[in-house]
Amino acid sequence: MDAQVVNLAKKLDTFSKHWSPKTIEQFNGHDLMVVKCQGEFNWHSHDDTDDFFLVVKGALKIEMRERTVELKTGELFVVPKGIEHRTVADEEVHLLLIEPTGTPNTGDAATAAAREEI
Amino acid sequence: MDAQVVNLAKKLDTFSKHWSPKTIEQFNGHDLMVVKCQGEFNWHSHDDTDDFFLVVKGALKIEMRERTVELKTGELFVVPKGIEHRTVADEEVHLLLIEPTGTPNTGDAATAAAREEI
Repeated sequence: MDAQVVNLAKKLDTFSKHWSPKTIEQFNGHDLMVVKCQGEFNWHSHDDTDDFFLVVKGALKIEMRERTVELKTGELFVVPKGIEHRTVADEEVHLLLIEPTGTPNTGDAATAAAREEI
Repeated sequence: MDAQVVNLAKKLDTFSKHWSPKTIEQFNGHDLMVVKCQGEFNWHSHDDTDDFFLVVKGALKIEMRERTVELKTGELFVVPKGIEHRTVADEEVHLLLIEPTGTPNTGDAATAAAREEI
């Protein structure tokens, strides 16, 4: 199928479930995903990939062992590979994520959320 | 240096020159870049990489030989590798681009715009 223009807000309007990343496009072996989150994710790291976060709407804290960063709408952050982190959102936050296709979101295939394309 | 939170709009406020991509972060061997464009770019393609465009502000047409897509603020499009394309912006548009570090923006090192980090 031909590549399509993706409107991030409209894609995010199509679902409500938290912690359920949806692949919206692919890029150089990576999945571009949108996700809605609220609350705390588990601590994890990815040995082989950086972790890209862009806040489409809302606010997100990314806690690392040494420091915490706070992102608002229109802000992005890349967690370097191997750095343990967890995300915390006091209210619902909408994100664009980029990870290599097949990367488990928890850093562990056994506990990873399933990905689906929308 | 530790990774920093990047506010896309604030980064774009720091320069006014068109067609001058600025690397704001790196991710898995790719440069994350912001750029301001107005007018038409030249036709080109990248044999080895997809081309990621996200409109941070404004509107952008991406012309391909077979079809043209139009993107507004908050919309993204990935031009598949090898597909000839050019961008057209009737008014100034602000973009987030992702390309492998070192990729010439014209598909040809001889005519590519220099990248700088901000």
